[in-house]
Amino acid sequence: MQELMYEGKAKRVFSTDNQEELLLAYKDDATAFNGKKKESFRGKGELNNRISSEIFRKLDERGVSSHFLERLSDTEQLVRKTAIIPLEVVVRNIATGSLVRRIGIEEKTALTPPLLELYYKNDELDDPLINDRHALLLADITPGELMKIKEKALEVNDVLREIFEDCDLSLVDFKLEFGSTGNGDIILSDEVSPDTCRLWDRETGEKMDKDVFREGTGELVPVYEKILQRLEDSTCAK
Amino acid sequence: MQELMYEGKAKRVFSTDNQEELLLAYKDDATAFNGKKKESFRGKGELNNRISSEIFRKLDERGVSSHFLERLSDTEQLVRKTAIIPLEVVVRNIATGSLVRRIGIEEKTALTPPLLELYYKNDELDDPLINDRHALLLADITPGELMKIKEKALEVNDVLREIFEDCDLSLVDFKLEFGSTGNGDIILSDEVSPDTCRLWDRETGEKMDKDVFREGTGELVPVYEKILQRLEDSTCAK
Ligand SMILES: Nc1ncnc2c1ncn2[C@@H]1O[C@H](COP(=O)(O)OP(=O)(O)OP(=O)(O)O)[C@@H](O)[C@H]1O
Ligand SMILES: Nc1ncnc2c1ncn2[C@@H]1O[C@H](COP(=O)(O)OP(=O)(O)OP(=O)(O)O)[C@@H](O)[C@H]1O
Ligand SMILES: [Mg+2]
Ligand SMILES: [Mg+2]
Repeated sequence: MQELMYEGKAKRVFSTDNQEELLLAYKDDATAFNGKKKESFRGKGELNNRISSEIFRKLDERGVSSHFLERLSDTEQLVRKTAIIPLEVVVRNIATGSLVRRIGIEEKTALTPPLLELYYKNDELDDPLINDRHALLLADITPGELMKIKEKALEVNDVLREIFEDCDLSLVDFKLEFGSTGNGDIILSDEVSPDTCRLWDRETGEKMDKDVFREGTGELVPVYEKILQRLEDSTCAK
Repeated sequence: MQELMYEGKAKRVFSTDNQEELLLAYKDDATAFNGKKKESFRGKGELNNRISSEIFRKLDERGVSSHFLERLSDTEQLVRKTAIIPLEVVVRNIATGSLVRRIGIEEKTALTPPLLELYYKNDELDDPLINDRHALLLADITPGELMKIKEKALEVNDVLREIFEDCDLSLVDFKLEFGSTGNGDIILSDEVSPDTCRLWDRETGEKMDKDVFREGTGELVPVYEKILQRLEDSTCAK
């Protein structure tokens, strides 16, 4: 029996008959600026479910495990249930967005090595940037676990960059969430999609992610369709 | 010959005949909220010059060196010239102020071990909180130097807590600046005063620092006079 456990901005979370698994149902809603901008796009949920499933599959293929178990339908996927650690782990390869506004670094500066940031996952506080010591105050993790999370995020970056390079996309930055399993392991959770990644076309520089919605500069669905198409094509090309 | 090299919000900086030394002249101005609130208090400059000199002297006595060389007059002190590293290093023993607003931690939570934060010293950007990786992007220092700065700040905290405890004051939090000398050493610079420290009376809990001005809850000069008095008394009592 499935029961709605939580409704987020982008997904509904349902329990399943298996205590250790959850069903994530991707919604058509797009939100930005911590929910202040909101719109619904028919087909977005299906696209993100397919994209996220495909990316988790490709990550797994390359040795990066996650909560992802299986895509169940157009909009639903089965995942391992975790206790989400209230940190948004952001990795940046190219400076843009809030980083440019925060520290005044020039737009498009290459960040080598990649820059990792932690944000406190707390909508009421507007997901503030925090440092490692804040993170240890706010999340129930050890310094060693925090280090592992950061290493894992950078490893995900390395592999994701390859995956997107095969799609002629440049991975500018992205946000990850991690969660603890029943046996104390910390695994990659939530989603990896154009909602949570900035992706720029490597030829044209065109933005192919949620920024088209944030900035009102293009149509979301056709852009997400292209991302899915390229991910599928890059699989077949191999 | 002395030449005005820079005028800050709290001090004027003059060159001296010695290339490696500067004269800092403390002003009567008080500012808050990045200069948005501003007022002048006759006697404040003298008080902060005396307080800061006395604290640097006490730090030195306890093995913590700084740029401080000598108090020259009521409002002036001689310091070693440094190239200021554009970081504000904040150490917190008790949660209050912007920390409470940022991460929603309860006011007055004891922070053990003390919490260290880095801010980018940049008025235009409103001195944003940053993490270590941002700091390495923004300041011309190595990871090893950043580690040393953080260690030094925590050492200053240990010693300052003792100094203020002898004055029946609880050191809630404070901001430090560090600078590089000609030979590559990094030393404690700028000032340590009720402008840059939060100090609470250990008996009554009364705020005895710039918060009386920030919050408009008391008279600045009498409070700073008490701080100086207690610092001088604690010297004599020894
Ligand atoms: N494997 C998992 N186990 C448990 N919860 C998960 C898992 N993966 C993701 N979640 C959580 O599912 C919820 C719904 O996702 P969604 O992206 O819609 O939330 P959100 O609105 O972005 O953010 P918030 O978490 O602030 O509600 C999120 O809280 C997310 O952290
Ligand atoms: N030893 C030193 N050598 C060189 N500069 C110093 C030294 N100590 C402090 N300073 C600098 O003196 C300047 C004047 O101090 P003041 O506190 O008035 O500046 P401020 O207005 O607070 O800040 P800002 O540095 O943003 O101007 C500051 O820029 C400070 O960093
Ligand atoms: Mg989400
Ligand atoms: Mg200053």
